[in-house]
Amino acid sequence: MRRWNGWGDDSTESHLGKDTLEYLQQRLGSGIVPQDAKLTSVLASIPPSSLPPNPLIKTDELTRLRYSRGQSMSDWIELRGGTGITFTDGVAFPENEAEISDLYEYARHTGASLIPYGGGTSVAGHINPLLGGEPVLTVAMERMSRLLCLDHDSRLATFGAGIAGPDLEAELRAHGYTLGHYPQSFEYSTLGGWIATRSSGQQSLGYGRIERLFAGGNVETPAGSLELPSFPASAAGPDLREIVLGSEGRIGIITKATVRVVPVPPVETFLAVFFKEWERGFEAVRKIVQAGLPLTMLRYSTPVETETTLALAGRRNIIAPIERYLDLRGAGAQKCMLIMGFKGSRALVQIGKREALALAHRNGGVYLGTLFGKQWHKNRFKTPYLRNSLWEAGYAVDTVETATVWEKIPQMVDSIECALKEAAMVEGEKLHVFTHLSHLYPYGSSVYTTYVFRVANTPEKTLERWQRMKKAASLAIVNGGGTISHQHGVGADHLPYLEAEKGKLGLEGIRAIIRQFDPEGLLNPGKLVL
Amino acid sequence: MRRWNGWGDDSTESHLGKDTLEYLQQRLGSGIVPQDAKLTSVLASIPPSSLPPNPLIKTDELTRLRYSRGQSMSDWIELRGGTGITFTDGVAFPENEAEISDLYEYARHTGASLIPYGGGTSVAGHINPLLGGEPVLTVAMERMSRLLCLDHDSRLATFGAGIAGPDLEAELRAHGYTLGHYPQSFEYSTLGGWIATRSSGQQSLGYGRIERLFAGGNVETPAGSLELPSFPASAAGPDLREIVLGSEGRIGIITKATVRVVPVPPVETFLAVFFKEWERGFEAVRKIVQAGLPLTMLRYSTPVETETTLALAGRRNIIAPIERYLDLRGAGAQKCMLIMGFKGSRALVQIGKREALALAHRNGGVYLGTLFGKQWHKNRFKTPYLRNSLWEAGYAVDTVETATVWEKIPQMVDSIECALKEAAMVEGEKLHVFTHLSHLYPYGSSVYTTYVFRVANTPEKTLERWQRMKKAASLAIVNGGGTISHQHGVGADHLPYLEAEKGKLGLEGIRAIIRQFDPEGLLNPGKLVL
Repeated sequence: MRRWNGWGDDSTESHLGKDTLEYLQQRLGSGIVPQDAKLTSVLASIPPSSLPPNPLIKTDELTRLRYSRGQSMSDWIELRGGTGITFTDGVAFPENEAEISDLYEYARHTGASLIPYGGGTSVAGHINPLLGGEPVLTVAMERMSRLLCLDHDSRLATFGAGIAGPDLEAELRAHGYTLGHYPQSFEYSTLGGWIATRSSGQQSLGYGRIERLFAGGNVETPAGSLELPSFPASAAGPDLREIVLGSEGRIGIITKATVRVVPVPPVETFLAVFFKEWERGFEAVRKIVQAGLPLTMLRYSTPVETETTLALAGRRNIIAPIERYLDLRGAGAQKCMLIMGFKGSRALVQIGKREALALAHRNGGVYLGTLFGKQWHKNRFKTPYLRNSLWEAGYAVDTVETATVWEKIPQMVDSIECALKEAAMVEGEKLHVFTHLSHLYPYGSSVYTTYVFRVANTPEKTLERWQRMKKAASLAIVNGGGTISHQHGVGADHLPYLEAEKGKLGLEGIRAIIRQFDPEGLLNPGKLVL
Repeated sequence: MRRWNGWGDDSTESHLGKDTLEYLQQRLGSGIVPQDAKLTSVLASIPPSSLPPNPLIKTDELTRLRYSRGQSMSDWIELRGGTGITFTDGVAFPENEAEISDLYEYARHTGASLIPYGGGTSVAGHINPLLGGEPVLTVAMERMSRLLCLDHDSRLATFGAGIAGPDLEAELRAHGYTLGHYPQSFEYSTLGGWIATRSSGQQSLGYGRIERLFAGGNVETPAGSLELPSFPASAAGPDLREIVLGSEGRIGIITKATVRVVPVPPVETFLAVFFKEWERGFEAVRKIVQAGLPLTMLRYSTPVETETTLALAGRRNIIAPIERYLDLRGAGAQKCMLIMGFKGSRALVQIGKREALALAHRNGGVYLGTLFGKQWHKNRFKTPYLRNSLWEAGYAVDTVETATVWEKIPQMVDSIECALKEAAMVEGEKLHVFTHLSHLYPYGSSVYTTYVFRVANTPEKTLERWQRMKKAASLAIVNGGGTISHQHGVGADHLPYLEAEKGKLGLEGIRAIIRQFDPEGLLNPGKLVL
């Protein structure tokens, strides 16, 4: 069963090795094991629903709890601590557009606001009921999740937008296709959620971000149905898909989506290269992504992330000799790991590998075969499970992310890491912080920073500690010329920083669009823009 | 000097060979050579400007005539005939954003409406003053056309948006870069115009449509400046670039644009393959574009277009033996030509060619080397000059275009061609009509149909003849499930058909965006949406 206050299915445990714990203790001090609230006491704390009964709506406490929060740091702190949780008043599970239309009517009559819900994996507060105000009805899309149409000639697949990653891939793979969209939340997140938050998969370099994959579909808005035809391209005015992408539940509920799929590639491979130090590898990855090769991903880690990855990998009997070998080749304490993925025909992949490795080699890269690449690929959805066991050892993990042009990347990495460390320092806390570039473009890169800190002795203090760090990092991002989000979206947590990139006038434009499709303001108030 | 009533510079003439004329006479009957109006008489027919004087605005007749019309069929008929021309009341040539702001002020005080003007190459009436109504001020962007910034690391170039294709490429090539954006209007059309109309270059398969090339910039709207940062990607809400793309001068004037450039590729090549008949080649081109190869273009012609291309190529001493060879290989009267372009490293191009030719071969394609590919590449901006000499021989040429999913393409080609022929037939006129697919996507294709018809004995009758055909083709497009424009935009000519694809609600969304940025309705009324 899915955890109600952590990541993933409770049959999947991640165990922290002794080495890992020691590694963190050395860097952060001992963790204070937090006293998590029990499910029963949290359920008992839920106030009665203020929604009038409706056959489409469930209002039992367990359902309300399960659909009230996502996976942001504050969601974790509040669910684990059992304090400060805002609860939805009910959850509807519509099976078709007509039922969604009925829910809009219901909302008009009851004064409720509606929160569209995909997989509940938001890390930015997209699906959280706000404190105070009108009753909240969560609209969970999981029953609208079938494969509706598969056009082999044009490689277009239409799904109910509530379909989750694994089901979508299973449906496609049964026919020899893949979407290739693998955000870290893949296990639970949904097609509709990906579209509404402009999601980016780990292999977006090869398969495309959701913006490119989303061909068309249907959005049920309070003002009516918005049908988006799946043309291969069009010059006929503004592209309405692009106001649905990133709309974060503010203009309507995405009910159907047509996506561009590809056959499962004949060859797909992942390799690792190690660089002596950050700068030379940085130069190499920029050149590699600019070379127009059949890549599916690049992931380039700072020295601290590389060290952490190797330390947490366990299996010292394998890792230690590899590190000695790298040391001999000049890649020592400051070494940086690069993982590269390729796909295509055998011949294309071979050329791609050869050209990429030549570029890496010219910057002193040491090629290490497919071992780390395979490991990364195998474990890529397991990392979030670590959050559970780290928390239970007294450590919280969060990530912040942005994207900007190449020139600004080195300064951006420094600024984010320093801002986080300084914010922790205010309380005399240490921080374990590391960064990678994981979505690379010819014209810039994403920056993805992970930070581990000690849980405080009360949920309120942990929350305050996190908020201080989150604010510092967010300011570093917008002041450094980055987008407030490359892949997590805006939600509630990034809302204060959106004006920095859209401008006052841009925000007014977004508000005008929202007003047009949701004139009564029924949908997800307080998210994206005020 | 640029022609005032035709295409291109008057120092470039295209001559119709005797063979070409005979070819058309056989198919359409003799052309009635039209009596074009003289420049002096057209200038004399221009009514006085109704704009109050302003140092930023030129109101002499020649300037007003030169900036009043584009290159649509009705523009041609009216300019050549000297009747029905609507004239702008004046033309401003702003040099900076502040002057544009002043022009908005001026428009507020004088009740004028403003038409942004790039290169004047619209084929859909984007820049035409409408009949009646308020005075019209055309804002020509040619003085804001400098390279402002070139970021080598991120391959981003920022230009004044009024820069024309050849100047933009010259600036970039001086630094080893290219944008690779070559619409047929390249000689005159501008960066700002490309963005405002969602332009697509002939090699968009390799270099990307303007949507992908446009990274950010500045739009001067009546409500203020809209700055669009050039992030490599962002998940922070709706992408405001996408409401500027295709805005057709309705929300503001694009003053600066940052574009994603690439180094001039080490290898670039164009080849031709001939297929026995349409269906097998159609199957092959779909597979080729879906194979993920380093292609820059595919252009696949129907039998009639292939025949016309070969007939108009002249040089029978070269073409005749080639046709005999193709005939021997089974590609006779129904043969279809495919041109393919590749770019990249030598190794990548080699693999790409090999895999594409293998797919062509499996469908009976006969490879014919680079002769026709080179010819196409060399002459691709010369075709519009043919319009001049054809007109002077009594024949008018127009094109219609759309895009849709693969499944619908064969029917779409038939419907458009039949609709045009039937519309001509109403008057007992014959039509020479042919089609190619020139922008191919894994998930569908554009359809580009050219039709040649006889000019009637008065401009009014020619206009009526054309309008009947244009309407028939437009209805065939939207009824067949295609976009009303893959690359020409909406303007005035396609406006009646936009609702078919955007829906009532979608159009309301577009109107809401326009109202937000141009609440007083100063900009380009009557274009894109009413």
